[in-house]
Amino acid sequence: MNKVHVFNAGPCLLPQVVLDNAKAAIDNFAGTGVSLLCISHRTKEWEAVMDETRALWKELLHIPEDYEVVFLASGASMEFLYVAMNFLEKKAAYLDTGVWASKALKEAKGLGEAVAVASSKDRNYCYIPKGYTIPTDADYFHITTNNTIYGTEIHEDIDSPVPLIADMSSDIMSRPVDVSKYTMIYGGAQKNVGPAGVTFAIIRKDALGKVSRYIPTMLDLRVHIDKESMFNTPPVFSIFVMNETLKWVKSMGGVEAIYELNRKKADTLYAEIDRNPLFVGTADKEDRSLMNVCFVMAPGYEHLQDEFAALAKSRSIIGIKGHRSVGGFRASIYNACTLEDVEALVACMQEFEQAHK
Amino acid sequence: MNKVHVFNAGPCLLPQVVLDNAKAAIDNFAGTGVSLLCISHRTKEWEAVMDETRALWKELLHIPEDYEVVFLASGASMEFLYVAMNFLEKKAAYLDTGVWASKALKEAKGLGEAVAVASSKDRNYCYIPKGYTIPTDADYFHITTNNTIYGTEIHEDIDSPVPLIADMSSDIMSRPVDVSKYTMIYGGAQKNVGPAGVTFAIIRKDALGKVSRYIPTMLDLRVHIDKESMFNTPPVFSIFVMNETLKWVKSMGGVEAIYELNRKKADTLYAEIDRNPLFVGTADKEDRSLMNVCFVMAPGYEHLQDEFAALAKSRSIIGIKGHRSVGGFRASIYNACTLEDVEALVACMQEFEQAHK
Repeated sequence: MNKVHVFNAGPCLLPQVVLDNAKAAIDNFAGTGVSLLCISHRTKEWEAVMDETRALWKELLHIPEDYEVVFLASGASMEFLYVAMNFLEKKAAYLDTGVWASKALKEAKGLGEAVAVASSKDRNYCYIPKGYTIPTDADYFHITTNNTIYGTEIHEDIDSPVPLIADMSSDIMSRPVDVSKYTMIYGGAQKNVGPAGVTFAIIRKDALGKVSRYIPTMLDLRVHIDKESMFNTPPVFSIFVMNETLKWVKSMGGVEAIYELNRKKADTLYAEIDRNPLFVGTADKEDRSLMNVCFVMAPGYEHLQDEFAALAKSRSIIGIKGHRSVGGFRASIYNACTLEDVEALVACMQEFEQAHK
Repeated sequence: MNKVHVFNAGPCLLPQVVLDNAKAAIDNFAGTGVSLLCISHRTKEWEAVMDETRALWKELLHIPEDYEVVFLASGASMEFLYVAMNFLEKKAAYLDTGVWASKALKEAKGLGEAVAVASSKDRNYCYIPKGYTIPTDADYFHITTNNTIYGTEIHEDIDSPVPLIADMSSDIMSRPVDVSKYTMIYGGAQKNVGPAGVTFAIIRKDALGKVSRYIPTMLDLRVHIDKESMFNTPPVFSIFVMNETLKWVKSMGGVEAIYELNRKKADTLYAEIDRNPLFVGTADKEDRSLMNVCFVMAPGYEHLQDEFAALAKSRSIIGIKGHRSVGGFRASIYNACTLEDVEALVACMQEFEQAHK
């Protein structure tokens, strides 16, 4: 069988060594003779995994001392609620960069006053709004740094006059981040830091405890910090795979080295999209995502879309169908996607050009 | 290496075929050529797993038509909140049978009026309260059917004048249940139906939508029913393992056959505890759990506790340390624990008796 090139938007590709180590642990976890799926989370062997995973986060992202990292079951959709529950007192400000940003805003509106300070909905979210003003009376300003559906990304750590909270579900660990500029960074693991079933949150500890509402136990971030993400049984397997994924990031040279690879992958693919007369990118160039590369058939070639999809499939390229709200194609090139995978897609685009130009 | 006999309280033993199939799917999920950890949850192959898992629940527990089954990330601790959010309007009634029941009650108290109608705290929860009255003006009556820490269990499906809601985290699928007597049955998967990281809820659909509070999206059970547990990315791996575990239950002859095995295992172990002069059970006999068998050294033999623990360890028996609030020993004999495992523990107890009587 040919090597399969996986461009799924998420859950997405994980490094082979991570998969191999997950399988080995299902046989025998940490030399205990017991499967990872059958161990008690109250064993020293498991607590060592929790400790190491936290330490890897702190090391890889250079997280300052006054922050803590927690791992929560569920997905970023539940974390939308954690944000509002733990930080919204009078008013929250959100940047509307797509469906996920809108969903985060909706959860805040359910608990209090929340506003979108700017939106790129006017052009189907194909750009990141600029020149907006963050209200200084907001409890926090919320951004979604990478927008998987539209292939846009906020590339800098913005300066905010109020606490900055970022959903980095789809670009965490893909590039260096100045964590000190954020009050909270959160996201689902299933792009760059593991499989589905676990989320992360990096929280400046002294920012908590400032809201007056009652917070249910499991939604109170202080509980999870105090209990080191073990208030209740954690999602053991997903955290184990997260640990393995972070060890792989470290083995690759850390986030800084991964970032160079990611730039090279994205540059290679965007260069082909810009060169190849059959295709055109959908996001504004300055806001193009390094993680999700969205493109459609160029004007005059729209009728060839299904044919290109079929060719890609025949070349073992899977997961490039665009989201229904954008159409066309989306290649998600997260950390574990290799330059070889990207080159396979580029070769397929060139082959298609030769056949149709 | 000797076969390891795992009596962990949870996460706990899973059948070997389940572990083998999980490993195989990490290599290649459903013939896709892609790892289970890297597949999109929006593929027909994954949707087939979701459909089959729901269907297995309905088949194995003979769930009536007007109920639906949902799978949620997180643990039963989060479901304590789901219960109160979705069902508590004026007043809720709880049966206090231990720490987990108390935690469920605490979450309800956070949202409104909630009372314990009876408690067995007076004797460290070593029995199930009897003869209590369920207030007819309660929105629901909540029970914890099996109490892992103390080894007690409610063996019958009780008749309640108000909607009955049960946390069955630790005895679901271990015995037949008349689902029609309950408005909701819920729990974490990590005892009898899978690994940590996913929960289940069986809900009578027409019982929802009767509270006036705002329910955040992810806490609204109607959302998860409407979206067939795919409102957001589900905990893919944990649900896959749940599916495999349910297929194993079916292959064993279903819940009714498993129940017979469970009775035999429990009878064998309790018989030894009652016969062996060195040990004594901690739960009242009529309320003894079929899942968690708690025992301590008999009066006069307390000094031998560490020595028995060491002997068990040398016989590859692990996970029998009792919870700190009860002390002594706890053998958790969930579905995947075999009669052979139980017999190994009994043999160890008899060997210890021979050495010390």
